Amino acid sequence: MPEGSQTEDRFASLSALLVPRSVAVIGASADPRRIGGRPIAYMRARGFGGAILPVNPKRAEIQGFRTYPDIASLPFVPDVAIVALPAALVEAAVAELAALGVRGVVVFSAGFAEVDEAGAASQARIAATAHAAGMRLLGPNALGLFNARIGWFATFSASLESFWPIHGRIAIASQSGAFGTHLFAAAATRGLGTPICVTTGNEADVTLGEAIGWLAADPGTDVIAAAAEGVRKPETFLAALAAARAARKPVIVMKAGRSALGQQSARSHTAAIAGDDAVFNAVLAEFGAVRAECAEQLLDFAYAATQRVYPARNTLGVLTVSGGAGVLIADEAAALGLSMPPLSEASQSALREAVPFSAPLNPIDCTAQVFNEPALISRFAETMLAEGGTESLYRSVLAFFSQTGGAPAIAPGLRSTLGALRAHYPGRLYALSVIAPESRVREYEKDGFLVFEEPVRAVRAIHAMGRIGAAFAAMPPEKPSLPDVVLPAQTPNEAEAKRLLGSAGIAIVPEQIAATAEEAMRAAEALGYPVVMKILSSDIPHKSEIGGVLLDLADVAAVREGFAVLFARARSAVPSARIEGVLVAREIRGARECILGVHRDPCFGPIAMFGLGGVFAEVLGDVVFHRCPFDEKAARQMIGAVRGAPLLTGVRGQRPADIAALAQMLARLSAFATAAGPRLVSIDLNPVLALPEEGGAFAADAVIEIGD
Amino acid sequence: MPEGSQTEDRFASLSALLVPRSVAVIGASADPRRIGGRPIAYMRARGFGGAILPVNPKRAEIQGFRTYPDIASLPFVPDVAIVALPAALVEAAVAELAALGVRGVVVFSAGFAEVDEAGAASQARIAATAHAAGMRLLGPNALGLFNARIGWFATFSASLESFWPIHGRIAIASQSGAFGTHLFAAAATRGLGTPICVTTGNEADVTLGEAIGWLAADPGTDVIAAAAEGVRKPETFLAALAAARAARKPVIVMKAGRSALGQQSARSHTAAIAGDDAVFNAVLAEFGAVRAECAEQLLDFAYAATQRVYPARNTLGVLTVSGGAGVLIADEAAALGLSMPPLSEASQSALREAVPFSAPLNPIDCTAQVFNEPALISRFAETMLAEGGTESLYRSVLAFFSQTGGAPAIAPGLRSTLGALRAHYPGRLYALSVIAPESRVREYEKDGFLVFEEPVRAVRAIHAMGRIGAAFAAMPPEKPSLPDVVLPAQTPNEAEAKRLLGSAGIAIVPEQIAATAEEAMRAAEALGYPVVMKILSSDIPHKSEIGGVLLDLADVAAVREGFAVLFARARSAVPSARIEGVLVAREIRGARECILGVHRDPCFGPIAMFGLGGVFAEVLGDVVFHRCPFDEKAARQMIGAVRGAPLLTGVRGQRPADIAALAQMLARLSAFATAAGPRLVSIDLNPVLALPEEGGAFAADAVIEIGD
Repeated sequence: MPEGSQTEDRFASLSALLVPRSVAVIGASADPRRIGGRPIAYMRARGFGGAILPVNPKRAEIQGFRTYPDIASLPFVPDVAIVALPAALVEAAVAELAALGVRGVVVFSAGFAEVDEAGAASQARIAATAHAAGMRLLGPNALGLFNARIGWFATFSASLESFWPIHGRIAIASQSGAFGTHLFAAAATRGLGTPICVTTGNEADVTLGEAIGWLAADPGTDVIAAAAEGVRKPETFLAALAAARAARKPVIVMKAGRSALGQQSARSHTAAIAGDDAVFNAVLAEFGAVRAECAEQLLDFAYAATQRVYPARNTLGVLTVSGGAGVLIADEAAALGLSMPPLSEASQSALREAVPFSAPLNPIDCTAQVFNEPALISRFAETMLAEGGTESLYRSVLAFFSQTGGAPAIAPGLRSTLGALRAHYPGRLYALSVIAPESRVREYEKDGFLVFEEPVRAVRAIHAMGRIGAAFAAMPPEKPSLPDVVLPAQTPNEAEAKRLLGSAGIAIVPEQIAATAEEAMRAAEALGYPVVMKILSSDIPHKSEIGGVLLDLADVAAVREGFAVLFARARSAVPSARIEGVLVAREIRGARECILGVHRDPCFGPIAMFGLGGVFAEVLGDVVFHRCPFDEKAARQMIGAVRGAPLLTGVRGQRPADIAALAQMLARLSAFATAAGPRLVSIDLNPVLALPEEGGAFAADAVIEIGD
Repeated sequence: MPEGSQTEDRFASLSALLVPRSVAVIGASADPRRIGGRPIAYMRARGFGGAILPVNPKRAEIQGFRTYPDIASLPFVPDVAIVALPAALVEAAVAELAALGVRGVVVFSAGFAEVDEAGAASQARIAATAHAAGMRLLGPNALGLFNARIGWFATFSASLESFWPIHGRIAIASQSGAFGTHLFAAAATRGLGTPICVTTGNEADVTLGEAIGWLAADPGTDVIAAAAEGVRKPETFLAALAAARAARKPVIVMKAGRSALGQQSARSHTAAIAGDDAVFNAVLAEFGAVRAECAEQLLDFAYAATQRVYPARNTLGVLTVSGGAGVLIADEAAALGLSMPPLSEASQSALREAVPFSAPLNPIDCTAQVFNEPALISRFAETMLAEGGTESLYRSVLAFFSQTGGAPAIAPGLRSTLGALRAHYPGRLYALSVIAPESRVREYEKDGFLVFEEPVRAVRAIHAMGRIGAAFAAMPPEKPSLPDVVLPAQTPNEAEAKRLLGSAGIAIVPEQIAATAEEAMRAAEALGYPVVMKILSSDIPHKSEIGGVLLDLADVAAVREGFAVLFARARSAVPSARIEGVLVAREIRGARECILGVHRDPCFGPIAMFGLGGVFAEVLGDVVFHRCPFDEKAARQMIGAVRGAPLLTGVRGQRPADIAALAQMLARLSAFATAAGPRLVSIDLNPVLALPEEGGAFAADAVIEIGD
């Protein structure tokens, strides 16, 4: 796959920016608080091992480093340059650096695409210059990046005056500089190590996706915490997600712009295409990336992921000293769909016999009494952990000890008890809900326990690890084979659209075109009664509004009369209409109405949609999306994911609908849309009639919209 | 209102437990770590000002206090006693204390209703003893309570070995002891003052509701943080919520048992009726109490409430140094329905002119640039705060400064800028999202700013304060007048049920009973065509399953034939059925189907339900509840609260349904259900047919279920 390795090379080329051995600072400042001074001060403080070459025409020495008057005077070609110049001087500097053979440049300067058209044009020119020279460019309008492992700080963020990065294996990648450093500072205050942080700013060259791609291959990174605003270069973004999944590195993503209001705000402050939020979620789900709803949750998930335990078929066992907390935990698990199977009957009776006051289901409520008899904790936990034998019943375990887990009289003994259990039952995800001083929390963490004060946050993190594990365990889906599709020059009429889709294997309601009453009668006889008749005219798009659809035609006389009625109504409603005849279709009864559709997302291309018919999709917005193309397995998952899915799987004793046929149609539609290429704007199959199991599913109407 | 003042007296009688001047400790221990030793040790350490009288037959002195061999030897009658004895000795001790005239007793001892039937019986006896003597009893199986203001610690919680309560105006009331102390410890670690904490345990006498009621009148308490498992003595609970609302004190409630799984766990560990979660939510909403989803959120809301600013018509203005954070905030506000109106056009242009790089909508993205020109923060904030004049446009303000708000170089200046602004624009709710050392956070708080690290949590807290404000601003609803309802002895048939409801003003589809074909034909002529006919037989409850419902009968011939068909079908399906005739009803077309119902909640009595018909209620669970009775205003709010509400208010150009008629029916149904008394089990009006505006709404079917 030459494409794949090209993408990998592209990701790898970011090493110039992330692990340089020498740096020139263009616009260097002697003041360690100024934009051109901070990187030097930070690198000095943290012992960057490479050469630091300040460039400033007015000084011979800056912060203890020999300083050069201009780029031309540099003693050798540095790996990378930081540009901290006014916007007007950036183009010339970038050109000079490119000509010199510098491999990467970080442009702090603002005043480009985020400001106006002239800025955007200038930005395009520096990007072109860099591209032509094979020089990677971060920014402009970027707060920069750091790699604390090598003391490399190409950033002017003031956050480093309050916090130095902690050792660790989480990396931050953020489009927004302010938000990236917010994540870094929030991580630092809770003791989380994020030695790498990349902020991409205007993304004239390096995008968030490329940063994720580089981190996916970085041996020092286990977990990627990403904050997106929109997605530039979607193929790169998708390749990065795929690379991270292949490397078994969780990507946890925050994206602002969930709501219409939020999306509006996003557009008001960034040049990025915010995109449709539901589509973005579908893309993340496709690659097993997990979305977090706020910075705190992003860090919760990243923290949990540092254990590198991702239970593919996740289950939760809960031990609690408070019944109320146990219920709270069970509530959250139920809301998330995280399974909490009960203890086996045998274990329950054994525990009840040994410890009469206990309520050993799951949660096991062992009550605060256990702190008077610490051996009981072992007893309870051991029973839980042994359950299921080698195929352990509980892949994740959460124990709620509250402040008692931090109490000086309890904590040391509890620690050794828990440590022994964990050593004896490895491979599970272990979390504690305790309130304890930081030093004690660190001890539990050192022993391999996640520590959360709030048990509900622990449950959410455990659930996220399971979703990641399921994605890692699933084989990447095979791309389905694509049909040959030749789109007509213009948007086709209903009959043409159906013929086109039918030739791609999409089942259409049996129907015929009839130009005369006699043809209509023959068609009806051939199709079988009852039939539906619709007026066929490109000039009458909304047939039902003029009474142009007749149902329940039960015999040949009704068809004859109906033909005359339809023509009369069409002529009276739209006298100028060119009438192509009528569509005679077999009337399908006892079917569920669904909607299948495709629209072209400006970022991610054709996106398929599935929903139930009528108010479900249109009023309740109960629809799901998936990037095209995909296979029937993915289609089945989509169908099962709508809230109204019970209507298809059978409620109140009704037979389930033919979901296999729906999934086949959906997958084929996705293949059709992909094969059709970029001229395809949208497809609507509405309604699709799904008969009970093995009866099939048929598109009763089809609209294909074609663009330029 | 003698009832009201009786309840108040009842609440006030808890003062014996919460502000005693003397205490006897029955089963006192010299070991400060034992259950009978801890309260004494805590009171000694915190300087309880009253007399402490240990009772222990084996010692003359305990922890420095003169000790008495038995209750009879006490030198005077203490206000309150703590009972820390084995369960078997509790009954006698309680009886002795009651005889002595002690006003309150705290029973730590376990082994009562939470264990078995014998324990429950013993518990009932101690409750009866206390009740007869007018002695209030907390517990048994209670972790106890504390009131740190007076150094009063009637608790054996080990949490006090790690934390002392901080001064403050939040009180905790929790049924669960472990969860109550979890809340206390979590509050303490974040510097939140909770000087009072009451845990009610088995609630043989004092309930969570009474604790809330006492706190509602306590001048030292502004905010009540409550954790419930179920509700005992619902009238008291409701009276307490009403008292808190009347005193303008927010009640913030956690209740475990949201999910079916959670409710099961709740039953497994507590004797309380967990109740239906949706009903509990409806009750909280009725009184303006706010539900929190976890301990952390409970404390977030309580913390926010300490500002005592509850914007009735809440709006949010946001100032941010990160566009991404601004979008995140806007997303959450949109999800919660918290309004973020934009800045006026005039202000926008003024700001854009003065500060070209800014994006002054709402959020105002002033970018990190402002830290280079701190005066700009004033400029931006001042514009926002002045907006709307005295009717300020922004009742809440959130500023996102991230770690910069904690930076030594920035924070002092920022603090004085913000302090001056707040002084100039009082009465708003002010929150900051900053990452800062604790000392700096305390400074901002002292200035009247809420400080949250995570902006999304700030938005949720601000939104909760608005909901509280709206509840405070709303007049308590007048109880509607009740009809005279005389329920029949047994569950009535459809026609009787409709007559009963009709006489209470509930509109029924026009219909008549017909015993013969001739009567049916006369009825149809009188009602007008088309008509619907249904077989009428108490022996055939599911009419449609046997083909016992005929639609679209358009003329007299169809009615005659239909009558014969219905009788034939009924006889063939249920040969033994006693057929009372047929119901002939005017067929209502063009109506939306709704479901109105009532069920009797074991805790809160009759609860009305509203939903849209068919799959909406039954498959999607899209229904809302309200305790009966209520007025039409409340009914309108219910109708507007279902997700499918747009189907009633008009989508796709359709005319809105007659919501006024639906609201009237719902309110009257609630009055009917209340008047009907406890024998009423349930009512189902399904479907109710709502015609377009001013067309009315009519119950087409009615089932009233009556119990013993």
